[in-house]
Amino acid sequence: MSNNKEINSNFSQDISELISENSKKIIQEKISDLHVADIGELIKGFSIEEAHYLFQLLDEEKSALVLMEVEEELREQLLSNLSSKEIATEVIENLESDDATDVISELTHEKKEEVLSLIEDDEHASDITDLLSYPEDTAGGLMAKELIKVNENWNSLQCLKEMRKQASGVKKVHTIYVVNNKEELVGTLSLRRLLLTESKIVIKEILNSEIISIPVSEGDESVANIMNKYGLIVIPVVDENKKLVGRITIDDVIDVVKEEAEKDYQMASGITEDVESSDSIWQLTRARLPWLLIGLLGGILGAEIIGLFEDFSKFTKLAFFIPLIAAMGGNVGVQSAAIVVQGLANNSIKINTILGKLTKELGVALLNGIICSIIILAATLILQYSIQLCITVSLSLLSVIVFAALFGTLTPLTLEKYKIDPALATGPFITTVNDILGLYIYFLIGQAIL
Amino acid sequence: MSNNKEINSNFSQDISELISENSKKIIQEKISDLHVADIGELIKGFSIEEAHYLFQLLDEEKSALVLMEVEEELREQLLSNLSSKEIATEVIENLESDDATDVISELTHEKKEEVLSLIEDDEHASDITDLLSYPEDTAGGLMAKELIKVNENWNSLQCLKEMRKQASGVKKVHTIYVVNNKEELVGTLSLRRLLLTESKIVIKEILNSEIISIPVSEGDESVANIMNKYGLIVIPVVDENKKLVGRITIDDVIDVVKEEAEKDYQMASGITEDVESSDSIWQLTRARLPWLLIGLLGGILGAEIIGLFEDFSKFTKLAFFIPLIAAMGGNVGVQSAAIVVQGLANNSIKINTILGKLTKELGVALLNGIICSIIILAATLILQYSIQLCITVSLSLLSVIVFAALFGTLTPLTLEKYKIDPALATGPFITTVNDILGLYIYFLIGQAIL
Repeated sequence: MSNNKEINSNFSQDISELISENSKKIIQEKISDLHVADIGELIKGFSIEEAHYLFQLLDEEKSALVLMEVEEELREQLLSNLSSKEIATEVIENLESDDATDVISELTHEKKEEVLSLIEDDEHASDITDLLSYPEDTAGGLMAKELIKVNENWNSLQCLKEMRKQASGVKKVHTIYVVNNKEELVGTLSLRRLLLTESKIVIKEILNSEIISIPVSEGDESVANIMNKYGLIVIPVVDENKKLVGRITIDDVIDVVKEEAEKDYQMASGITEDVESSDSIWQLTRARLPWLLIGLLGGILGAEIIGLFEDFSKFTKLAFFIPLIAAMGGNVGVQSAAIVVQGLANNSIKINTILGKLTKELGVALLNGIICSIIILAATLILQYSIQLCITVSLSLLSVIVFAALFGTLTPLTLEKYKIDPALATGPFITTVNDILGLYIYFLIGQAIL
Repeated sequence: MSNNKEINSNFSQDISELISENSKKIIQEKISDLHVADIGELIKGFSIEEAHYLFQLLDEEKSALVLMEVEEELREQLLSNLSSKEIATEVIENLESDDATDVISELTHEKKEEVLSLIEDDEHASDITDLLSYPEDTAGGLMAKELIKVNENWNSLQCLKEMRKQASGVKKVHTIYVVNNKEELVGTLSLRRLLLTESKIVIKEILNSEIISIPVSEGDESVANIMNKYGLIVIPVVDENKKLVGRITIDDVIDVVKEEAEKDYQMASGITEDVESSDSIWQLTRARLPWLLIGLLGGILGAEIIGLFEDFSKFTKLAFFIPLIAAMGGNVGVQSAAIVVQGLANNSIKINTILGKLTKELGVALLNGIICSIIILAATLILQYSIQLCITVSLSLLSVIVFAALFGTLTPLTLEKYKIDPALATGPFITTVNDILGLYIYFLIGQAIL
């Protein structure tokens, strides 16, 4: 019984040394019972030469599956050593249609055509050509063509016979789909039901017609939401005529869920495009520049606001706590916005509860604000700043915290109302606005007290 | 054929009105073909009285399943109207063991005992008692007991017979598990294989022994990582003696994946505990206070640093751009840290590529820094600040951006090295440190130029 092995750095170093000694046999023995996901992890930590070396030691089927475990960049490098013929017969024919399509879509245009023409299994080739026609971020781009399909007019004996035939081409049987004579999806059939039924019963009478399907043009995030909401492991995909064209399994959708969560995280961190640390310097710069420019604009506005109070005599002393007030306004705003954004993402906030949310947020802000303002009052008194300044800072902090919390709560709710992604509100935008308004409150209070 | 229906606000309002008119029949008709997930969504938007009303119109099985679609708070409220007897026979007996255990674990201690004693199905009751003994965040806390299990010494005919018996108690057949006479898990059997095999073959000869299982004490995040890595839809759980004790399906694990992503997001937003907007004011305050206190400390340090330069004659003018410098340092630091944190989470950063990462980050920072410093130079000149001040701000901004980027990259990498969650580096911590160091750089350059 093989089990999940942690690919630790010792094992990885061992293999690395064996590669430098060119000990093919020993390496093959050592990696023979590794899962393809583990081999993928191993290869990711290697130099490209080592990766090539290890890759060519694998048998056809394993090497094809390992390719699906590594990132696009490395996959392209590993494939670059193979001829179109090898890609077609050794890689593509060993992959299910969705993975095969992903690999082919990453090839250059000429190579793509060449590889497609060299695939020996005609059905596989036409499945891939079909899948290539759908945009990557739709149900069509996620689905695979391999599935088990029976006609509603068959009886269960015929059905089992047909299934045996189809099953040899399908690696995992998730669900049996039932279609009518027009190839329209009419239901599903559970294997359990089939096993419990007499052999002469017609499928039509035992099928489950309460099925959830998804149109081929539906967006990938919507597919993820629907599968997640209804707890589905696999979902059938239909075209505009309700014909069954493919199926999407949950493992392909988990990546979409993860990417979605990462997008919110990046938004909160001030990154506008979906970048990875392996992207080019220019891509990384471009993804980060927009928010920096907003920050820049905020800074200039901040300078102008301070300018409004310039002739004011106690100005110098006030300047000391500009960073404190600005930072706290930003921090509180982001905290409040993040809680709302998550609530919206999880559907736990409804419009009729907004007033309740605001009241609660006000409570939290007052509590945090009073604690923080007492602490800052004590700290500044101990550090022997003037009493008026201490009171000004303490009062301003309380006001800024309350104001930033309300603003941080309202902004994402407003964005959501106008169908704009509320996560926008958690990034530098809210920090910047709260910075500026916090400064204004601070100087106003300072002017009154000092 | 029913399909996923968007629960739009019109439909929701219709039902709401029908409830106020007490039109039971019409409501029952309208919701009869809704999926439980949709009924859950509908109820979430209702007042608690409306929720109770709708809930009692549902049949036993549906109402039990709807309970699993709503949040804990609402579930408790809906259950509060039911007697222990009703909870035991109408709710618990209609749920699979994992969901049943979740519901029971939320009851008060006395009610828990009472409900357990009233469950009529003894096997179900003992399954739940067993599951209650595992910590919530382990494999044991996630698993369900319902599964199909066959002995390796049976032949395929016996196997099909036994399966028919067991299948009536199991809603969805995911995998057939094979155990030996000691009840130890020895492999799995695909239905496909079973269908394609002659009836006299012994299971031992056709089972798949390459299985990945998980110990009952394993942490939930580890379960999620392993299922995700190996692309598993269901994973068997074994105890310390390798005995098969349960199975975990992917839908329970998706919640763990989402929570994990949310935790990073909350960390980046300055929230320390896993809170939801429905938590109490005190919980919400406590989760947010730690980072605010760090921000407070940073603000006080900032004031002290400004104090170092107080006697400096051009101080007043410099104060104008304190918010700009502080904010930009914070923004850049968070951006850099977020990219590293994500890379670490996705395993796409390896220790041997750190030097490369730093060089690249330096490139991105220089590019962003040069663009921003040219813009600020032009903007301040146009706004007619003194030329020395414009040059000071522009140069400081370039230095602060480069410095913050390097610091933002190194901090999560260092935390990771010492096995501390690198996401810590994306929150107010990095903003605060960059604020202070940015100010210091700014005043140093200001002192030299002005």
